[in-house]
Amino acid sequence: MIRFAVIGAGRIGQVHARAVASHPQAELALICDPFEDNAKKLAGQYGVPYVLEADEVFASNVDAVIIGSPTPLHVEHILGAVRAGKRVLCEKPVALDLAEAERCRDELGAEADRVMIGFNRRFDPTFADVHARVAAGEIGELQQFTVISRDPAAPPAGYVAGSGGIFRDMTIHDFDMVRHFLGDIVEVSAFGSNSLPEIAEAGDFDQAVVVLRAADGRVGTIVNSRTCVYGYDQRMEAFGSAGALTADNLTSTAVRKASADVTEARGPILDFFLDRYVDAYRLELSAFIDAVLADGSVVPNVHDGVEALKVADAATVSAKEGRPVKL
Amino acid sequence: MIRFAVIGAGRIGQVHARAVASHPQAELALICDPFEDNAKKLAGQYGVPYVLEADEVFASNVDAVIIGSPTPLHVEHILGAVRAGKRVLCEKPVALDLAEAERCRDELGAEADRVMIGFNRRFDPTFADVHARVAAGEIGELQQFTVISRDPAAPPAGYVAGSGGIFRDMTIHDFDMVRHFLGDIVEVSAFGSNSLPEIAEAGDFDQAVVVLRAADGRVGTIVNSRTCVYGYDQRMEAFGSAGALTADNLTSTAVRKASADVTEARGPILDFFLDRYVDAYRLELSAFIDAVLADGSVVPNVHDGVEALKVADAATVSAKEGRPVKL
Amino acid sequence: MIRFAVIGAGRIGQVHARAVASHPQAELALICDPFEDNAKKLAGQYGVPYVLEADEVFASNVDAVIIGSPTPLHVEHILGAVRAGKRVLCEKPVALDLAEAERCRDELGAEADRVMIGFNRRFDPTFADVHARVAAGEIGELQQFTVISRDPAAPPAGYVAGSGGIFRDMTIHDFDMVRHFLGDIVEVSAFGSNSLPEIAEAGDFDQAVVVLRAADGRVGTIVNSRTCVYGYDQRMEAFGSAGALTADNLTSTAVRKASADVTEARGPILDFFLDRYVDAYRLELSAFIDAVLADGSVVPNVHDGVEALKVADAATVSAKEGRPVKL
Amino acid sequence: MIRFAVIGAGRIGQVHARAVASHPQAELALICDPFEDNAKKLAGQYGVPYVLEADEVFASNVDAVIIGSPTPLHVEHILGAVRAGKRVLCEKPVALDLAEAERCRDELGAEADRVMIGFNRRFDPTFADVHARVAAGEIGELQQFTVISRDPAAPPAGYVAGSGGIFRDMTIHDFDMVRHFLGDIVEVSAFGSNSLPEIAEAGDFDQAVVVLRAADGRVGTIVNSRTCVYGYDQRMEAFGSAGALTADNLTSTAVRKASADVTEARGPILDFFLDRYVDAYRLELSAFIDAVLADGSVVPNVHDGVEALKVADAATVSAKEGRPVKL
Repeated sequence: MIRFAVIGAGRIGQVHARAVASHPQAELALICDPFEDNAKKLAGQYGVPYVLEADEVFASNVDAVIIGSPTPLHVEHILGAVRAGKRVLCEKPVALDLAEAERCRDELGAEADRVMIGFNRRFDPTFADVHARVAAGEIGELQQFTVISRDPAAPPAGYVAGSGGIFRDMTIHDFDMVRHFLGDIVEVSAFGSNSLPEIAEAGDFDQAVVVLRAADGRVGTIVNSRTCVYGYDQRMEAFGSAGALTADNLTSTAVRKASADVTEARGPILDFFLDRYVDAYRLELSAFIDAVLADGSVVPNVHDGVEALKVADAATVSAKEGRPVKL
Repeated sequence: MIRFAVIGAGRIGQVHARAVASHPQAELALICDPFEDNAKKLAGQYGVPYVLEADEVFASNVDAVIIGSPTPLHVEHILGAVRAGKRVLCEKPVALDLAEAERCRDELGAEADRVMIGFNRRFDPTFADVHARVAAGEIGELQQFTVISRDPAAPPAGYVAGSGGIFRDMTIHDFDMVRHFLGDIVEVSAFGSNSLPEIAEAGDFDQAVVVLRAADGRVGTIVNSRTCVYGYDQRMEAFGSAGALTADNLTSTAVRKASADVTEARGPILDFFLDRYVDAYRLELSAFIDAVLADGSVVPNVHDGVEALKVADAATVSAKEGRPVKL
Repeated sequence: MIRFAVIGAGRIGQVHARAVASHPQAELALICDPFEDNAKKLAGQYGVPYVLEADEVFASNVDAVIIGSPTPLHVEHILGAVRAGKRVLCEKPVALDLAEAERCRDELGAEADRVMIGFNRRFDPTFADVHARVAAGEIGELQQFTVISRDPAAPPAGYVAGSGGIFRDMTIHDFDMVRHFLGDIVEVSAFGSNSLPEIAEAGDFDQAVVVLRAADGRVGTIVNSRTCVYGYDQRMEAFGSAGALTADNLTSTAVRKASADVTEARGPILDFFLDRYVDAYRLELSAFIDAVLADGSVVPNVHDGVEALKVADAATVSAKEGRPVKL
Repeated sequence: MIRFAVIGAGRIGQVHARAVASHPQAELALICDPFEDNAKKLAGQYGVPYVLEADEVFASNVDAVIIGSPTPLHVEHILGAVRAGKRVLCEKPVALDLAEAERCRDELGAEADRVMIGFNRRFDPTFADVHARVAAGEIGELQQFTVISRDPAAPPAGYVAGSGGIFRDMTIHDFDMVRHFLGDIVEVSAFGSNSLPEIAEAGDFDQAVVVLRAADGRVGTIVNSRTCVYGYDQRMEAFGSAGALTADNLTSTAVRKASADVTEARGPILDFFLDRYVDAYRLELSAFIDAVLADGSVVPNVHDGVEALKVADAATVSAKEGRPVKL
């Protein structure tokens, strides 16, 4: 049994706490949140103790720490936990600022390979199936890779202002996915647009297209939107010399409807990440636990987190200055 | 060039006239209809002469006759045309009455093989593809066969009264299809029901399920309805030891819609037989022309017409008496 | 917390044990199986005690008993548990023999409403969605109901011999589903066939079509096969005056493939009931727990179990004697 | 009846000849091709005269001319026909060279509105349905537009060398489509890559992604490939504030297959443009004939041809120089 602490009792911390509690090789041992009400409530749900300070987590006897604190605290919490000898799974991004993420990576040294960064979509069964089949050569040489990723509804303009922008906050998942399929990225061209005046006023784009050139010349494409009236639109297509694999959206049932108006009509797609990626969070945790038990490295790790941030930074510059940015 | 006359200038005659006119090896030469207005109008469309009496068709120099007259006249027109040395393609059914159809077959003798009966669905590209792939062994041994066949809207109760009932009028197409896949039928169990009071009052069923036992023991199933709010529901499923082939409905475009209410929603299916089976009518004519050019026999022919009627008669008795009927 | 014992440590008992262990309002308290190895192993997995005799379960302080013992013991275990004041969830069927099931129902008296019978498919999210939407009037008046239900592979001929036949062993789930949608059944016509000689030699059918007439005249249709090369084929279609709802098979991912051979190709469907109905088992338990907490009755209960058996008996006679059987 | 001449008896001329011959308001009157064998053969098929020189077409009494000659002759043939008072439908592109196309437009003056350029995809029923429903507001404000367009197999390297490059030769259809949906384009960013060494050696890309900025700020995306093992991949997606409309590929039948390997597997998509766009060619001709009968202007016309070429030129520069190109 691996003993886990969860730092951050917010929405994402709750997801991780539940995943830990129901994993046969994991034990939820400690909750940490500076807001005592939050900490108390989540800890109470599982009958475990809570603390208010991350330092108390590091000083505790837990084996592993899941970091779901606000992004500006990620590096501090990663370094604190690793120095205390804990294994770490930290939510993305490593930091809002690339320099800060690189500092984290550098201070971690060889340990950077052992800190998992929560690019959970790599563990989604549908996306992982596409990746595994591409890797197995089922579509020959992979030649083009396209991601469509749209959130159901935009965050408040206030959140957007402090989020680092759409590329660092939202597209970063897709950047990691393109790297996962095409390898390292050498050039980024990003094109932002706005359908929502309030986001424009907050100085950010709410829609974007990003074209990424991989080191071997292949091209990946990302289409993003902060809003999508039909739900959390999460698709990808891998095109290769021997075929294509397409990941569709998921629905909660397999019911089709025919009526005077429509035929073959499915119900709504899974609403947002807590539903859409519930299996991904669970499988991410399993992969982490396997690595902890094997005392080995993990993927995606801090290096992947730094690389995705580099791409996000480049995209931010590209969209602003209207030119391709090389990495 | 094969010179064609079309007897009957109604809806189905118009379909055949158009198919003939646009076939490279066919020439529309004569239209016949006792209602001069109808005959004149259709003939005028193609700039061909018309006559009012079928005998004038038989006496003419056409090579082939397509019979789209009312069912009670089919046998008379088939025999007249064949005696005059014409090749014949006659709409289904051969007759409303099995004895009459058998008389036709018997009088035709060896010619019965050369008169095509218009079970057009055998020529539908989708259904024909299922049949060809089953025949090629793609799903191993065919074991179960299911047809779903629903009309968009019920005919007037007045029509129903003279139609011979749902099994002779509507299901007869499906009976032919089951025979096409499973071979001769030895037992029929039919189950009628009513969702439309006016059809019930006219003494007919407007919904039915029929189970057919083939000579080799395999079982086919037909589900029928005279009404279907989403259109002309025409599907089938062939299930075998190595897989299944399913024929879906056809839509006029390949557009899918996602909105707040639905996802993957297709538009309406093709509305009724003139749209749904436009290719089938065309390919039926081609098969007929090929047989005429080869001076050979055709399938489906009068024998198939008689066999389908036998099944329809058995189904009528079965549904009425609540028992299986052997053939 | 409701304390549960599970009688029967076989495959289905393991499913229930896991569902209980992960339900927040349930506590797995006791395992019972006459084969000590089985009991010990399952109990060990959850760190709970085990017993060898059902009487020890009845004498224990558990609140509820899940019965997954062999069918011949169901009635004895139901009655024993109920007499000891326990709430009961028993696997289907109530008994192999209708008379035995009726005896159980009669001895239970008013308690028959409170014993749940495990027709788990009613709780499958996809089928439950169809049922709820039909009940909400989304497709108007329900007029026709069709179930396709095929197992991936036939059980050993030895099992078949003692199973009571395909209708009692396999179709019984579908009978319950038709009753769930169309209400009580008044007439059954069943048509068996064989694709597997070894099942024929064991005196059973391995394929069947059943037509059921409901009390209000509507007709339901079931298509069964003991084998299906593409997996566990579990579909249904509800057809009504305002549309149709179709339940498709489920796949483990949402990946589509295009290659030189195929397009839009999905992967395998979920393999068998432990995968396909994992959510159904979980939601069945939740419904049961809700009823226990409310001290109320449950659906489906022993009455539903008896009714499904009546239909299965009638189907068995119908298929053997080649005639409709009234209930 | 409108009397048509077809200039060019090659593959595309044959398509147009057939469309004219089967259109009720059109009469195929003359074929023109400098290669007498070609001209004779096509003319013979329809029993019409042929000529070898375009001037003889202009001097003839035809009402309309369809130009399917090699691209370098388009402008000469357009101008010759228009000066002779004929209506013109010319295959895309207007010219290989933008200056030449602009000269054509300028010389035509007001007549430029009356010369149709064969961007046939606008008339494809599936794409036209998407456009009409977007225009009708079915998905609210259109915000993002994506085209996937892949040819089944690359042309010979020799053809590629003289084709003007992928953007002028292949993507030009997609440029017209993006303009059709998003309006005039103000900036183009194109990204080429190569999966085929022989195309790379011929100095062209065989794969490309193009991002287009419309005058109102909206962004369109095109993904191209010269090869696609599963056929002629022709899709688009219109995303708006109230939903999305997606155009899928078309198959020749509506058959789905389930086997041990795949489920829901469709057959091959329509192979190439002669099959995929057969309806589009027919409907394009109908739209042209309607305009001729009304003595009115047409869309798409020479202006659209010039605009698409401008985008193609910009894309060519963009891909070569690695920077966005403004129009």
